[in-house]
Amino acid sequence: MDTATALERLGSARVGHLATADASGVPHVIPFVFVLDGTTVYWAVDRKPKRSIRLKRLANIEVNPNVEMVVDGYQEDWDSLWWVRASGPARVLDEGQDRSRALELLATKYPQYRAEPPTGPVVAIEIVRLSSWAAGD
Amino acid sequence: MDTATALERLGSARVGHLATADASGVPHVIPFVFVLDGTTVYWAVDRKPKRSIRLKRLANIEVNPNVEMVVDGYQEDWDSLWWVRASGPARVLDEGQDRSRALELLATKYPQYRAEPPTGPVVAIEIVRLSSWAAGD
Repeated sequence: MDTATALERLGSARVGHLATADASGVPHVIPFVFVLDGTTVYWAVDRKPKRSIRLKRLANIEVNPNVEMVVDGYQEDWDSLWWVRASGPARVLDEGQDRSRALELLATKYPQYRAEPPTGPVVAIEIVRLSSWAAGD
Repeated sequence: MDTATALERLGSARVGHLATADASGVPHVIPFVFVLDGTTVYWAVDRKPKRSIRLKRLANIEVNPNVEMVVDGYQEDWDSLWWVRASGPARVLDEGQDRSRALELLATKYPQYRAEPPTGPVVAIEIVRLSSWAAGD
């Protein structure tokens, strides 16, 4: 899969999976929704966090900014499997222009966010490594 | 979601996402197929690894046995979202009875493995923490 195809698949995926790790290297993984803008991935903390455990990803990023995400299409025909992985440093956006623009991009991709905009922190991941695989390659 | 439901959803998921981290805490995440037996998750390295990068998960486990996995059902109706996460130590199984049994369990769940049994290492994850979330909870 070439880089353009990998970026296209990354950007069009409706859901991804994000891995963070704490200061002692214990990994954490969650499904998440996100938007790709150039080589930056933006995501927002859910509109109504109900449990502190759901913010583990933010606590991890604070002490260890390294994150990795993957998008993929699981099918029972394993000859059609593929994935695209992206990794790099994550940072929580300050209030202001960057945050507003990220929220606009998220709302453009997800009508769900237009109905109920996220009120929590917004995080940016700068992609520094992109890799991909397809069973057919 | 109660523990029985969480375990049922974990066991019946066709695909999960597995996070490992290296010695310096850099996380790695991949989609993977697995089978749940009691509170142990088994998975095998794909039948024909084509790139060394695909074995990163094994290198990580060697230096840092902490792993976390998640299964979830993404839907555009965000009021139906859910996930189940499980974490604990991972270890590569030695040749022998444990490995054979794990491969049998994998082949029972996945016909794809019956057609072409995995020849690579088999890994066991002992679940020590299980957590779950559903939008409707």
